[in-house]
Amino acid sequence: MRNANRVLTLAARPTGFAGPEHFTAATHPTRAPEPGEVRLETLYLSIDPAMRVWISENPGYVQRIEIGDIMRAGGIARVVESRADGLAPGDLVWGQLGWQSAPTLRAAGLEKLDLGLGTPENWLGLIGITGLTAYFGVRDIGGIRAGETLLVSGAAGAVGQIVGQIGKLEACRVVGLAGGADKCRRLVDDLGFDAAIDYKAEPDLAAAIARACPGGVDVFFDNVGGETLEAAIGALAIGGRVVICGRISQTSLAVPYGVKNLGLLIGRRARIQGFVVSDFAARFDEGRHWLATQAKAGRLQQKLHVISGLESAPHGLGMLFRGENTGKLVVHVAD
Amino acid sequence: MRNANRVLTLAARPTGFAGPEHFTAATHPTRAPEPGEVRLETLYLSIDPAMRVWISENPGYVQRIEIGDIMRAGGIARVVESRADGLAPGDLVWGQLGWQSAPTLRAAGLEKLDLGLGTPENWLGLIGITGLTAYFGVRDIGGIRAGETLLVSGAAGAVGQIVGQIGKLEACRVVGLAGGADKCRRLVDDLGFDAAIDYKAEPDLAAAIARACPGGVDVFFDNVGGETLEAAIGALAIGGRVVICGRISQTSLAVPYGVKNLGLLIGRRARIQGFVVSDFAARFDEGRHWLATQAKAGRLQQKLHVISGLESAPHGLGMLFRGENTGKLVVHVAD
Repeated sequence: MRNANRVLTLAARPTGFAGPEHFTAATHPTRAPEPGEVRLETLYLSIDPAMRVWISENPGYVQRIEIGDIMRAGGIARVVESRADGLAPGDLVWGQLGWQSAPTLRAAGLEKLDLGLGTPENWLGLIGITGLTAYFGVRDIGGIRAGETLLVSGAAGAVGQIVGQIGKLEACRVVGLAGGADKCRRLVDDLGFDAAIDYKAEPDLAAAIARACPGGVDVFFDNVGGETLEAAIGALAIGGRVVICGRISQTSLAVPYGVKNLGLLIGRRARIQGFVVSDFAARFDEGRHWLATQAKAGRLQQKLHVISGLESAPHGLGMLFRGENTGKLVVHVAD
Repeated sequence: MRNANRVLTLAARPTGFAGPEHFTAATHPTRAPEPGEVRLETLYLSIDPAMRVWISENPGYVQRIEIGDIMRAGGIARVVESRADGLAPGDLVWGQLGWQSAPTLRAAGLEKLDLGLGTPENWLGLIGITGLTAYFGVRDIGGIRAGETLLVSGAAGAVGQIVGQIGKLEACRVVGLAGGADKCRRLVDDLGFDAAIDYKAEPDLAAAIARACPGGVDVFFDNVGGETLEAAIGALAIGGRVVICGRISQTSLAVPYGVKNLGLLIGRRARIQGFVVSDFAARFDEGRHWLATQAKAGRLQQKLHVISGLESAPHGLGMLFRGENTGKLVVHVAD
């Protein structure tokens, strides 16, 4: 199979959670690179909440994936054959590989990994887009300051676990929202969160947040949306900031939850701000350097949740929305 | 009745709109001022949306008015008798007079009107709290810039009419939302708005906003909340800002409307920000000077909607929520 490229294409648009029934596998011969291109062997593929948006009927600001298209996905690959300057066989790269085992792609869209900054596994999360999203989101958009209270939803997820640790490094009180006692225990015991709330076990999430954040929430970093967002808005301190990074609870719904308490933003002098990490591209080196420095000093860690084989990717996409992952979910495709 | 103080007290908490049935009138003798106090004759009382919040069960960040209390209200009065430094009989002052015709109050809470800046009528709106709310809201919170599109809800109301005119002075395209053809015509013909949308006549407000703002909404100044806020969020441009000043459509509801499209803030890199004008108190002189200068040059005007007699105040509060006022609503109590 050395000359085979296994691909997964979109077969049907999901109306709820995505899963294996929405994708079709096929095998094509690999394609020799043309000038400016490289032929790759995929090592890891990243599974991200945004992927559910890409395959929806109306994804908004990103181009949607059409039925029959190869599923879009970021990942890490090894260069097998190169007709591009600056990339040689054996180099590792990050790029939009798609769900395929042996893609041939233009080198211009790929980033050569600097393994001096971190391992390939770190490039998947901590110093990759995930880490950068956490870094710019909580610092630049959230504007966290020492002594403030930071609440993070999806705290055991890819971005959330890093956001919380950055909050601790910035001398904040950090409270995480996650589903299940195991995830919550890990946030406190392994990652140094001050407290964790198991939203699945709390009949009144707003009351639980108020108990865990008695002085109010200064920054809420939201990966979840919906009822979680509403509960956190109710707990905002004067001058509170909400960073909307994701809305994993809402992405698979036909009709999203309606947030009823935006009027509180007036008296709280509070703001809600959305962002897209690619707007910070000019500062990625700054962010990566900071994240890599903290990681090398042992002050920042990540949990990767690894599943195996390209064919497991659609199942992984469903796991993400069912909350079955702890940490950054990736598909291991080849060594 | 020269020595009588007519007062209106809260008799019952409204569940929907407020009106005469929620207040009781009484007449007390006037009280002679003690040291540091002045006895006043009320000339005008301001009717503001926030007053409905003050009499609700749970007003949030402001102290609620109890049953039997004199209704709280800002207004303009003439000093009749003074035992306070700096205030003499005949001086005009702004302050929290309450719904009473001849209050005796501490001078420390009153502001002597500088009639060089504007008439008493201007102090009620254009250079008063209303004008300052518009000024700091659209400039500092909204951050409007020349060439941008500014959408204003409650555009024919007290704050809205000034926000829109400031937008024109800042070289923005200004679109107003108001209820009724007359209000809309006045926005365009008298106040220079580029367009006005009669929300009562539009079956699809979101579509109407999209037509009137083809490049998207850069700043939405919201006095209304609820479905109006949701429709405007849907029309935000990349980098759009929503200023939440008021939510007059929601204040009288037991269960506010749920806004379902906050997820759009991510891709639009947009923010929603609430504010309270008193936070800008240190800069009120700056704001008043700017507003007064524009008004004297004929570049900024206000419509006052005047109703007569202290006893008309409860009816006025209902008018505000039924959208029956055009411009700043005030009660004329005495000449």
